[in-house]
Amino acid sequence: MSLNFKVVLVEPLYQGNVGSVARAMKNFGFSDLVLVNPCPLEGEARAMSSHARDVLEGAIITSCIEDAVADANLLIGTTGITGSKFDEHIRIPAHVPRELKQHLQGSCGTVALLFGRENKGFTKDELRMMDMILTIPTSEIYPVMNLSHAVAVVLYELSDIQPGETPLADPFDTKLLMEHFAQVLDNIDYPEHKKEKTELMLKKIFGRARLIPREVQTLRGVLRRVQKNLVSDLKK
Amino acid sequence: MSLNFKVVLVEPLYQGNVGSVARAMKNFGFSDLVLVNPCPLEGEARAMSSHARDVLEGAIITSCIEDAVADANLLIGTTGITGSKFDEHIRIPAHVPRELKQHLQGSCGTVALLFGRENKGFTKDELRMMDMILTIPTSEIYPVMNLSHAVAVVLYELSDIQPGETPLADPFDTKLLMEHFAQVLDNIDYPEHKKEKTELMLKKIFGRARLIPREVQTLRGVLRRVQKNLVSDLKK
Repeated sequence: MSLNFKVVLVEPLYQGNVGSVARAMKNFGFSDLVLVNPCPLEGEARAMSSHARDVLEGAIITSCIEDAVADANLLIGTTGITGSKFDEHIRIPAHVPRELKQHLQGSCGTVALLFGRENKGFTKDELRMMDMILTIPTSEIYPVMNLSHAVAVVLYELSDIQPGETPLADPFDTKLLMEHFAQVLDNIDYPEHKKEKTELMLKKIFGRARLIPREVQTLRGVLRRVQKNLVSDLKK
Repeated sequence: MSLNFKVVLVEPLYQGNVGSVARAMKNFGFSDLVLVNPCPLEGEARAMSSHARDVLEGAIITSCIEDAVADANLLIGTTGITGSKFDEHIRIPAHVPRELKQHLQGSCGTVALLFGRENKGFTKDELRMMDMILTIPTSEIYPVMNLSHAVAVVLYELSDIQPGETPLADPFDTKLLMEHFAQVLDNIDYPEHKKEKTELMLKKIFGRARLIPREVQTLRGVLRRVQKNLVSDLKK
């Protein structure tokens, strides 16, 4: 097994950017491009892709993020730093590209690097899907990078990563683990208004921890045992 | 004193790239842009600069590289890796952005980051002027990066550099040192066909060594003493 990256552009608006992204990918040795509901791709996209027309033409086009990342073990969403405190629990902690590299050293599996729309990034629901949030450290005065520049910087950082033998957990198993946790929160009458934030926090923690398959199974075993020993269950 | 960087674009051909460079500069907190004989800058340059129009409009325009770098203590030329062995002694050793950062940690002074033309980079004579050659590690299959991507990656790497109190040598003094070395090579009847390569090598070594003013003076003292003790001189 190896460590594969796919670059996922979510609803890109400008075809020139899509072409530039393809070029930056080929510059750094990446080739898996997925486009979710992209703008029309014509001459300008091809021109900006330059000698990376193969990457552009090999791009997979999907109509939703779920299809784009179906085979990915880890979803990494890249966002700009926003001054706003809004949705802080979704956006934070954010990691810088160097941390992501360290995080993934020695792993194998498929990692989806997602980049949002040029004008408004990701929706709240899209951000909730991410296992990790990635932010490129930029000037506070003007933090909004051009889409293809952001891709170039992230791929530059990841281009000399050392993969290894540690498998990333299967996304389906991780999803079951998260659902299991949600179940347990219900079982213990966890306050409804805290649930969403706590679930998101758990998702982020597991994302950062880079769970291996065995750990996912062990955690689920713990949860099963918790459930068996709950007062609500004992009363039966 | 502080550590200042100026981005110097040598004869850029596409105004969109110049605008994109301005944007990437502002994203990473840089503002000194110098353009040597640029293409006409009109609406597209402004559009691509986005909210970095101030950087674009504040750019200094010169008609030669010498004017662009007159106040710089160190000239760093960024080039793509070429498969060709041609001019290897000019291009090699090339340093990656992370090495440049380590190299400049703790320094103060003005560093010129030069980027060549989109189609053919730097001329041989321009490369000879550089104190260090910088190369972004890219895929061998497609090493030629878009100009603004290259700038973005270099500035991303340099944006968290820690400046310090160690002054970079004055460019005028360094030039005198190089001329002094050339003189000594003449004095010792150094083979004519090796002279140019050796002088270039010395220039690169001093560039890498990040000479401080006192070292330049000490080296010149050594050279003066060498000259005084040469046979040709003793014979007089």
